[in-house]
Amino acid sequence: MRKTAPQIPSESQDSCPMPDKQGAGASRLTLRQVRIDTYHENVAYMHRDCEVYRAEGFKALSKVEVRANGRSILATLNVVDDESIVACGELGLSKAAFAQMGVDDGHTSTVSQAEPPASIGALHRKLDGERLELDDLRAIVHDIAEHHYSKIELTAFVVATNRDELDREEVYFLTEAMIEAGRRLDWHEHLVVDKHCIGGIPGNRTSMLIVPIVAAHGMLCPKTSSRAITSPAGTADTMEVLANVELPVEQLADIVRKHRGCLAWGGTANLSPADDVLISVERPLSLDSPGQMVASILSKKIAAGSSHLVLDIPIGPTAKVRSMPEAQRLRRLFEYVARRMNLSLDVVITDGRQPIGFGIGPALEARDVMRVLENDPRAPDDLRQKALRLAGRLIECSPDVRGGDGYAIARDILDSGRALARMNDIIQAQGSKSFDHNQPELAPLSFEIQAPAAGVVCSIDNLQLARIARFAGAPKVSNAGVDLMHKLGDTVEEGAVLYRVHAGYASDLEFARQASSKSTGYEIGRKEDVPHVFVEF
Amino acid sequence: MRKTAPQIPSESQDSCPMPDKQGAGASRLTLRQVRIDTYHENVAYMHRDCEVYRAEGFKALSKVEVRANGRSILATLNVVDDESIVACGELGLSKAAFAQMGVDDGHTSTVSQAEPPASIGALHRKLDGERLELDDLRAIVHDIAEHHYSKIELTAFVVATNRDELDREEVYFLTEAMIEAGRRLDWHEHLVVDKHCIGGIPGNRTSMLIVPIVAAHGMLCPKTSSRAITSPAGTADTMEVLANVELPVEQLADIVRKHRGCLAWGGTANLSPADDVLISVERPLSLDSPGQMVASILSKKIAAGSSHLVLDIPIGPTAKVRSMPEAQRLRRLFEYVARRMNLSLDVVITDGRQPIGFGIGPALEARDVMRVLENDPRAPDDLRQKALRLAGRLIECSPDVRGGDGYAIARDILDSGRALARMNDIIQAQGSKSFDHNQPELAPLSFEIQAPAAGVVCSIDNLQLARIARFAGAPKVSNAGVDLMHKLGDTVEEGAVLYRVHAGYASDLEFARQASSKSTGYEIGRKEDVPHVFVEF
Repeated sequence: MRKTAPQIPSESQDSCPMPDKQGAGASRLTLRQVRIDTYHENVAYMHRDCEVYRAEGFKALSKVEVRANGRSILATLNVVDDESIVACGELGLSKAAFAQMGVDDGHTSTVSQAEPPASIGALHRKLDGERLELDDLRAIVHDIAEHHYSKIELTAFVVATNRDELDREEVYFLTEAMIEAGRRLDWHEHLVVDKHCIGGIPGNRTSMLIVPIVAAHGMLCPKTSSRAITSPAGTADTMEVLANVELPVEQLADIVRKHRGCLAWGGTANLSPADDVLISVERPLSLDSPGQMVASILSKKIAAGSSHLVLDIPIGPTAKVRSMPEAQRLRRLFEYVARRMNLSLDVVITDGRQPIGFGIGPALEARDVMRVLENDPRAPDDLRQKALRLAGRLIECSPDVRGGDGYAIARDILDSGRALARMNDIIQAQGSKSFDHNQPELAPLSFEIQAPAAGVVCSIDNLQLARIARFAGAPKVSNAGVDLMHKLGDTVEEGAVLYRVHAGYASDLEFARQASSKSTGYEIGRKEDVPHVFVEF
Repeated sequence: MRKTAPQIPSESQDSCPMPDKQGAGASRLTLRQVRIDTYHENVAYMHRDCEVYRAEGFKALSKVEVRANGRSILATLNVVDDESIVACGELGLSKAAFAQMGVDDGHTSTVSQAEPPASIGALHRKLDGERLELDDLRAIVHDIAEHHYSKIELTAFVVATNRDELDREEVYFLTEAMIEAGRRLDWHEHLVVDKHCIGGIPGNRTSMLIVPIVAAHGMLCPKTSSRAITSPAGTADTMEVLANVELPVEQLADIVRKHRGCLAWGGTANLSPADDVLISVERPLSLDSPGQMVASILSKKIAAGSSHLVLDIPIGPTAKVRSMPEAQRLRRLFEYVARRMNLSLDVVITDGRQPIGFGIGPALEARDVMRVLENDPRAPDDLRQKALRLAGRLIECSPDVRGGDGYAIARDILDSGRALARMNDIIQAQGSKSFDHNQPELAPLSFEIQAPAAGVVCSIDNLQLARIARFAGAPKVSNAGVDLMHKLGDTVEEGAVLYRVHAGYASDLEFARQASSKSTGYEIGRKEDVPHVFVEF
């Protein structure tokens, strides 16, 4: 209780609610970058004794609106009791939030309790189980892309649109809204091809083979990929072993015009930016519902300017999709939305029972890819075959190629060395890095996992092998990871090396070792125990 | 790419995945409190260049397990680039997380990538739309109470159990699980009475009248209340104007035994601790689904040892419940779960069209309460009548009181001054504070809102008035808030003062003024425009 006597200030006669300059002035704070990476959530840090904090009854977790330099962002508020982080009179912003203001430390800012994002009504209607229209999803996606949603609101959206909560029309609306929220590339050609996999299979680096093959065939294939988020390597991480992948969009366009293809990181192009924000809650929850997956993948591809897409859906006991009926349901949803968006889509259901190739981790996977391109006898045949089949399907998008001829054309391009030559052109154009795929410098620490008994390899757990490679340091330590010596169906003796784990640091090695001691990810049994997965191709 | 030549260390021959002491040692970090209030989420801060961080491929937003002093907590990881917040070799913990470790700065800790909480499988089954059993909800609630869930996982649970996603059996399981996760009080009497309101109505401080009335009647009424979370005052905030409310459970028990009642803050008793964690995501989302509300309220009351509860469900256009069918559905759910829990429940549906009493804010509400207890002619009659009716219903729980006699007994206790005497006993026992309710020291800055035209007050918006009082500084500035001069149905002249806003700081006043300039929360119209709400009592 304050001890000042009651008094009636002059303002008490002023019944008209006009802005009060003295009051507004009290809320000015000095901006300060707080060098904490809060991932995709804007966080504002304010000292507990800050007048503005007390004034507004701000609470931890409530949202504030910060204005400076003519810009405005919403941020979740954390209250701080340490003047060395933020002092009274200062407003701290987490790294990403600070960057959005485009100013230096010391800039003046004003803070107010945030109005809820404009789309919060639409979010609540979805929470109530209602169907949303295009304009509703536009408003929601706009707010997400502009970082107006807190992590809690993002999660609410992701869970409320989970399972079958979005019908296919809503999935189309969501896809359209996600494209509109970002940049859209136009290559000024009728045929722009791309290939995508829904993910979940370690070592599955077919894009790095398909791009040079189809580009050598003359098709335009401006491939942009993501970095690994929870996997041990994304295509961008693996390509980065060989070449620079972070290129300005203009330079990328020059490379694509000259070489008909590229293999770059998509992050610089601002394609479907809401997707990157949604991923920040989908991944920790391991939520990958059909509607969200379709909108995420198709919005990125259409924004990148693709006219034709071959989509790889692997199925297997430890893949994202575990049964053929589930794969067919997902295929129909992809096809429905692609048709609405005028994207020519060819869905291919593939064998997802085990990792593709031998290596898991950027350098190990780059080695496998280069060996396939060089027709090296040590090259993994499963990677070669899968890449040729998918490339063949893309080549058949050409009006002058007959259905069924694509595979042979792709094989000729690969066997003749034209794919390797094109890959080297692309690597040179993006800026090559030194990497000796004949004798790659793998991370120096290692251990091996041996077969506990003689028998046939009858199961390899994609999730566990990815986990072990991740613990070993991939993709951050690019030459760390797992090198598989045996694949499904191989007959092994007791004590045969199943795989070797490479790590750059002792603590990595230890974490990977603990993970493989819980479960090696391999099962040795009889030939009859190898699961048969029916695949279309 | 690291430039060290490939080498085969001695460990490469060691195929048995045994813990490696060197590796484990690398993950020891020095604990440090980072004085940031992240509300109910544990956050760990680690420097970007920390070996352990790089080693494990930790990412912002992934969860880590921190062990020290024989305890273990899970925390969300934020990566830091500022050595003054955390240096390499240190592990920072947010305030609440640090407190859970029970150690001082500088203690040794180990960190590892967290295994998912044990109940994450049950959460995923709920996300998939399945029905959960008691053991599933026990596991989830245990993990929530132990802070094993991230904000994202908490939100996923709250959204996946929203609307009708929990059937009434599951609501009973959730209630039971929430009680088991905390402390349960036993008063060793057959009749332990309590009163609760589902909330949403400003100024609704009937508990502070009901407790002294029923205690004066000899009934045991150990009332624990919450502080305001998004409202301008909770019962604990208002009582705190008059007396100390933060008391150890043992002292509280002594007071209750001596005076048959108390009015204390419930936070010290660790009753239904999962509820406090869930609120941290329910409130920012404004989600208050029937299942969660029932489990939250009944778990707290049963854990507090109540045998009989009178529950107040206000209905009105700006109340939490807006129609009679909705109120009846909610009543049935409360009654079903209460019966399963052996709690005798009396649900009362009340008039929630407007705030109760005149004052909104701790000191203003305490003034109204004391005036009712003193039979002061300035006392708000609606607060008096509502308190008497609810107290009467509680008194009728006595086996020796006839149905219908409760109201008259309550009125006699209030009119005779016995309720005031009992309230003063309780205030003295808890530790009184100086407060002159005859001439309370209200916050010194103020402005008034006037009627724009002559007419009848035909609507008062509970949400907007609460918002204005909150902006004015309540409950943090205890003598700030809104003082209503006119209520529903009052005839006013043009320019009549509808309410006065009191604030302690110029910036508060300004924010409140801006809020009331957007909408005053009052509508002046004709007598026929006053909404009629059918209420049971």
